[in-house]
Amino acid sequence: MAHGGRRRAAIFAAGELLDLDRVRALVGQPDLVICADGGLRHAQALGLRVDLLVGDFDSLDGAALADARAAGMAIVQVPVEKDRTDSQIALEEALRRGADEILLAGGSGTRLDHTLSNVLLLPRCPVPVTMTDGKSVVRVLRDGQTLEVPRAAGAYLSLVPLTPAVTGVTVTGVHWPLEGAALRWGESLGISNRVVDAAARVSVGAGCLLVIQAWD
Amino acid sequence: MAHGGRRRAAIFAAGELLDLDRVRALVGQPDLVICADGGLRHAQALGLRVDLLVGDFDSLDGAALADARAAGMAIVQVPVEKDRTDSQIALEEALRRGADEILLAGGSGTRLDHTLSNVLLLPRCPVPVTMTDGKSVVRVLRDGQTLEVPRAAGAYLSLVPLTPAVTGVTVTGVHWPLEGAALRWGESLGISNRVVDAAARVSVGAGCLLVIQAWD
Repeated sequence: MAHGGRRRAAIFAAGELLDLDRVRALVGQPDLVICADGGLRHAQALGLRVDLLVGDFDSLDGAALADARAAGMAIVQVPVEKDRTDSQIALEEALRRGADEILLAGGSGTRLDHTLSNVLLLPRCPVPVTMTDGKSVVRVLRDGQTLEVPRAAGAYLSLVPLTPAVTGVTVTGVHWPLEGAALRWGESLGISNRVVDAAARVSVGAGCLLVIQAWD
Repeated sequence: MAHGGRRRAAIFAAGELLDLDRVRALVGQPDLVICADGGLRHAQALGLRVDLLVGDFDSLDGAALADARAAGMAIVQVPVEKDRTDSQIALEEALRRGADEILLAGGSGTRLDHTLSNVLLLPRCPVPVTMTDGKSVVRVLRDGQTLEVPRAAGAYLSLVPLTPAVTGVTVTGVHWPLEGAALRWGESLGISNRVVDAAARVSVGAGCLLVIQAWD
């Protein structure tokens, strides 16, 4: 199903989903569903038809993999000894299949190395990408870009500089607005703001900024 | 207690500790214990004497705060409407009190904005700092620095570039060694290595690299 000509992909990685209802609302009806290894269980929990399963299958039990094969699911099995994580491979497959908007779910969890590696997939992605675990919704803004974030019940809005400095940060529609501010590593000025208008508007002069909605 | 003249501080933030025994071993007998708000419960779970409690006390219940006051604990209460997170304030207090080595525990959890903001406290810190939740041990390496990471049962060793590119990365003593490699955002080459010698040795030419031990 195309939405205004766009091709939306949902990628499920093997990390945690902390609020399945919020993930369900964000996922909607994607055009393409790709599961990275153990992420298959999340897509199945949401009742989604899976287009592609990729991975080395170190986090998916053999029975689940056999069931997927029996169901005729397209599967790309990569060697355990590889240079890319399953999430990176899934993202590349989504782009190769024409996705022009990507939701990455289950990319964070108790393996902080995987969480951080997955966050760093965002700024290099050539199409808009959102990462979520249901308790946080992470987007990335680069030089000159602007993003609108609608108010959502209970949500904090946090800005985290991914480059050592992000300059020209302007935020309106929030409790603590900023006007041409600089955000730097080690300063937590941008954390736990609140959207007060119908939507916040965040824009960046130079640098790479994470825009995160988060719920306690 | 000084250790070879060093003054070691342990900071407990209000996030999650996923393996208390591993945290206990890393904390050891610190010279200074600072708790950021709800992080107090972690220090108490470890039976540590607390030198300072800081925060706006939005994540600590009133009874626990009253008990802390009654016990004569030094308390710095900051306004809820502030420009810094409790973790940043605790880190600055540790430095102000002469810490020359810092362990930040409980700085990660389900609030991904807080987790990322806390990770970004590391590269700006003027003394060596380690962040842990018991399932991951995060250190930072900058231009020209070298770090030894002893082999630990079951641990992965992951390298995550915090700047868009980290060059001249050399890793020895591991299953997949690197020699003068470049690590870039969006490439997950450095994830899930294994230490095979008594210790791995990681060095960085230019850039800022996270060196993470992680357990499943």
